[in-house]
Amino acid sequence: MSNYKEQLKHIHTLVFDYDGVFTDGVVYVTGDGRQPMRTSHVRDGFALQKAVKKGLTLAVITGGKNSAVIERMHQLGVKYVYTHVDDKEKTLKVLMKSLGINSENMLYMGDDLPDIPALELAGLRCCPADAVEEVKQRCHYISHCNGGHGAVRDVIEQVLKSQNLWMNEYSKDDME
Amino acid sequence: MSNYKEQLKHIHTLVFDYDGVFTDGVVYVTGDGRQPMRTSHVRDGFALQKAVKKGLTLAVITGGKNSAVIERMHQLGVKYVYTHVDDKEKTLKVLMKSLGINSENMLYMGDDLPDIPALELAGLRCCPADAVEEVKQRCHYISHCNGGHGAVRDVIEQVLKSQNLWMNEYSKDDME
Amino acid sequence: MSNYKEQLKHIHTLVFDYDGVFTDGVVYVTGDGRQPMRTSHVRDGFALQKAVKKGLTLAVITGGKNSAVIERMHQLGVKYVYTHVDDKEKTLKVLMKSLGINSENMLYMGDDLPDIPALELAGLRCCPADAVEEVKQRCHYISHCNGGHGAVRDVIEQVLKSQNLWMNEYSKDDME
Amino acid sequence: MSNYKEQLKHIHTLVFDYDGVFTDGVVYVTGDGRQPMRTSHVRDGFALQKAVKKGLTLAVITGGKNSAVIERMHQLGVKYVYTHVDDKEKTLKVLMKSLGINSENMLYMGDDLPDIPALELAGLRCCPADAVEEVKQRCHYISHCNGGHGAVRDVIEQVLKSQNLWMNEYSKDDME
Repeated sequence: MSNYKEQLKHIHTLVFDYDGVFTDGVVYVTGDGRQPMRTSHVRDGFALQKAVKKGLTLAVITGGKNSAVIERMHQLGVKYVYTHVDDKEKTLKVLMKSLGINSENMLYMGDDLPDIPALELAGLRCCPADAVEEVKQRCHYISHCNGGHGAVRDVIEQVLKSQNLWMNEYSKDDME
Repeated sequence: MSNYKEQLKHIHTLVFDYDGVFTDGVVYVTGDGRQPMRTSHVRDGFALQKAVKKGLTLAVITGGKNSAVIERMHQLGVKYVYTHVDDKEKTLKVLMKSLGINSENMLYMGDDLPDIPALELAGLRCCPADAVEEVKQRCHYISHCNGGHGAVRDVIEQVLKSQNLWMNEYSKDDME
Repeated sequence: MSNYKEQLKHIHTLVFDYDGVFTDGVVYVTGDGRQPMRTSHVRDGFALQKAVKKGLTLAVITGGKNSAVIERMHQLGVKYVYTHVDDKEKTLKVLMKSLGINSENMLYMGDDLPDIPALELAGLRCCPADAVEEVKQRCHYISHCNGGHGAVRDVIEQVLKSQNLWMNEYSKDDME
Repeated sequence: MSNYKEQLKHIHTLVFDYDGVFTDGVVYVTGDGRQPMRTSHVRDGFALQKAVKKGLTLAVITGGKNSAVIERMHQLGVKYVYTHVDDKEKTLKVLMKSLGINSENMLYMGDDLPDIPALELAGLRCCPADAVEEVKQRCHYISHCNGGHGAVRDVIEQVLKSQNLWMNEYSKDDME
């Protein structure tokens, strides 16, 4: 765990799965041919925007096909958004190569089996509290928050805090 | 329970009710004449797709009238989707006959009274943790997951694991 | 409580508030002028249909303004649906008079302050587990289910069971 | 805490953040360019209307951009609704000045970091049970209710009760 605290300081790229990480895994289906609706959490959104402002690189890789996810992630400043992805490992390898990202500087958060090969590329492997067992077994850090209920915020907050970039503009008090 | 573990190995057909099994039973009603919206879970969807790939036969029988359910189930590979069903027992008997399915090879998962007669046709009777009492009393296996929160995934995962078909492509590690 | 069990046998009219009783009180607001979306539960719907079939009289009285509520309640067989109601006591008194309903044959379920005067007209006063304190204090029966999570089903089931009208068509077994 | 009870009596202006206070922080995103959907709770709505009737001044200040929030808040009688706000402290200072509001007569409820500078302007600082740690540390009162699950109702009810304005029209009984 002290190792985990140390690793946080070297993270400058954060890669996330979408469903089950930004959401609780529920999709809402309608009967009129529209795309399923998905949830998103304002506190995760706030953390994403803060991370972008502080210079971190953010990516989302999902097997989902929802254009609203792309749109919302772009609005929040996430530069690299991949949807319709069958092989997350392959997509992540291409991204790492093109941006010159090393494993030890990369955090990955996922919740289910298709995340495992991509997760194993990251120096810091994280998952929500309600990830499946096989994912949990491979993670350095299991958030106390469920997917869609603060798991993304939790890891971004920890990375930024470890680098003294979290709470320095909201109060004159010294916040810790 | 050892009997239950043994039965899992012989299942090749899985039949599900929709509302209360794939969902928590909530439907979302709007005021503009559109069909009510229903939830669906990505982890259940992932398990369905995997089951289809591994050669299992999947069916959904629901009293509901939502065309989005049909569409989504078909997208995920569920071949037999019956909506508007008043008498689930009758529908299931016809399906069993036309496909030549024996009771001992069939699992049924339902949550409420209208499922009981169909449930009783199955060799392996399952329900979500939050099924009604009368259904629970008749089941061989009560999932630890609620409807809409992993109950479908739970039984598919157990069937595939019992047949060594679950976790063999996501990692080089021996997972068991 | 034995009194409560006795009273159940004489109920033939059930009157419900909508928000907080059929739902958890959440409404979903969109930005395009459409009516807010509301939840509904399939198990409550099943119980309503059963109650209608067995000859009970059902009414919904709500301050809400959602036409989808009217539509869905009518589909499920609820004959008397009043929306936009400011004074529930007055509406209920008119209904009782026109149908000749006596207090001792009427059950009312509500969850919040505006329900209190109407609730006090009923011989059997019920509320969901998460009703406000002032309502709970006035009830003969507080359901173990929250609003939107089975509270309606719970009271309908108890009325029908007390009159031996609940589980007589789903199985050859004696269910009691 | 006795201090808190005393302060309640002097509150005549209540200022709220929206996301995470009126809601659980979840927004629902669709894929067809429509505004994200947000939740709202009928019991909060009832309390808002009551507060307006009793002469309290209500304001909502949010960084969100949803026109449905404005519309619904206006319908419920909230006179001052500010959306798209980057700097809540600045907006609140302008409001306080233009209406001549003193700190000791003002309650603020928020849940996340961007609320802190505005929160610190209020004589009575409140937050939902699930506010972030940094906000909780600065509050006089932490509601036992989560955002979107009664937190707004809770503080309005307490203010009105402290001023003997809460339960005086729903029953002939003395409720206290």
